[in-house]
Amino acid sequence: MRIALGIEYDGRAFYGWQTQRQEPTVQATLERALSKVANHPVSVICAGRTDTGVHARCQVVHFDTNSERQARSWILGANANLPSTVCVLWAQPVPEEFHARFTALGRRYCYRLLNRWVRPAVDAGLVSWERQHLDADAMNEAAQALVGEHDFSAFRSAGCRANHPVRTIREISVRREGEHVDIEVAANAFLYHMVRNIAGTLLPVGRGERPVDWVAEVLHGKDRTRAGVTAMPDGLYFMSVRYPAEFGLPEGVPTWPQGSRPE
Amino acid sequence: MRIALGIEYDGRAFYGWQTQRQEPTVQATLERALSKVANHPVSVICAGRTDTGVHARCQVVHFDTNSERQARSWILGANANLPSTVCVLWAQPVPEEFHARFTALGRRYCYRLLNRWVRPAVDAGLVSWERQHLDADAMNEAAQALVGEHDFSAFRSAGCRANHPVRTIREISVRREGEHVDIEVAANAFLYHMVRNIAGTLLPVGRGERPVDWVAEVLHGKDRTRAGVTAMPDGLYFMSVRYPAEFGLPEGVPTWPQGSRPE
Repeated sequence: MRIALGIEYDGRAFYGWQTQRQEPTVQATLERALSKVANHPVSVICAGRTDTGVHARCQVVHFDTNSERQARSWILGANANLPSTVCVLWAQPVPEEFHARFTALGRRYCYRLLNRWVRPAVDAGLVSWERQHLDADAMNEAAQALVGEHDFSAFRSAGCRANHPVRTIREISVRREGEHVDIEVAANAFLYHMVRNIAGTLLPVGRGERPVDWVAEVLHGKDRTRAGVTAMPDGLYFMSVRYPAEFGLPEGVPTWPQGSRPE
Repeated sequence: MRIALGIEYDGRAFYGWQTQRQEPTVQATLERALSKVANHPVSVICAGRTDTGVHARCQVVHFDTNSERQARSWILGANANLPSTVCVLWAQPVPEEFHARFTALGRRYCYRLLNRWVRPAVDAGLVSWERQHLDADAMNEAAQALVGEHDFSAFRSAGCRANHPVRTIREISVRREGEHVDIEVAANAFLYHMVRNIAGTLLPVGRGERPVDWVAEVLHGKDRTRAGVTAMPDGLYFMSVRYPAEFGLPEGVPTWPQGSRPE
């Protein structure tokens, strides 16, 4: 039996998603907790790997088990065995043809900037900091050049394992909310560091150091060295995954499990 | 010369505000950083002491110094010497008759609840968690009974050092924002644990365990043992302090220092 889970985590607590020599990782931590609930070793596969310091509001994973448990028991059991920096948001049985990574139609990221003169304190590690005033409207206008199917080589960091650099951005927006500026990107899939490289390229536009049409120029140049720097991981959130409707999975974070909310 | 500062801090990193045997405290940490900038020992006095785990978006302090520094230098110098969990938001010279605590006309707190089925992960320690669905409108209606000048003995924890239990709540509101419920309280001053005791008394109303008029009944009973429990510190934020307009201090957090924002 295959189970899909929605996962939230604080990226500061982990050396990224994937199990490796350097511990702890989200994957290893989650597998350990689920193995206890299942009473057998469990391996999880995620929709999109995240780097050290990158957070998830709703990462999606799947795993196989021969233990019969109700969705509620997977959630409560896993959360009781997970540290305070990770939790299971929902659990749902899925057919064998479901695959957290290969069935995904799209992923959504948010890059959150604290845009004020002084560095963060309460939200240190949970936002990236930009001290110069950002023109969010100019950034938003510039970002629209990235919408559609493109060769994103200019925004692909060295070490990317993808077979090709073509991705489709469905939607991108840059919006100011008080002292925060949020960059939201929805795409079919992402290259290595793609959102952080996009953020690093939109920042000089926001500061007024580059014109709005520079982002289109960088995209078409397909040259990583001509784009902006890779922005810090602190403000990056893996927000949600979209799957075909037939699987009936929640997109994002449901506040209460289906049917369990009082009233 | 007397200087006023706006301070932000993450309460998880400290054993409360006040310097004591158990370290680190916000006061001791701040005094150490300011003493380095001033080149002489500095003592700070704050508008309102906070407990272990309670955060501040804009605490206000004052201190005396004979070192001549520009506001900008106090901010940058202090922040360079403070850990990532505290920062100085603004600095401003004030006349000798200004006193962070005694000149304050009012303080504002916010108590932020994460109201969903599953505990927090990314925001663990920065929100309080309530798994049962809360009726924020009922809580808001119930809270209005607290507005005005009252004897708040029912919401005063043991160990309170105030001379009397009478305080004036200027404004209180309970609002839902997605999966969060925020309780905001503005008063002339607060008793020990007053906001956490109010939150703990509004929660049973939100859950539907107590009627809306129970809060008025608790207030008039003046009996701490008949009120709700003291809610967790995690979601509590000291938001801002209000001073007489003549001092020209910012209320809350200015994004850029006066006149320094580009455009």
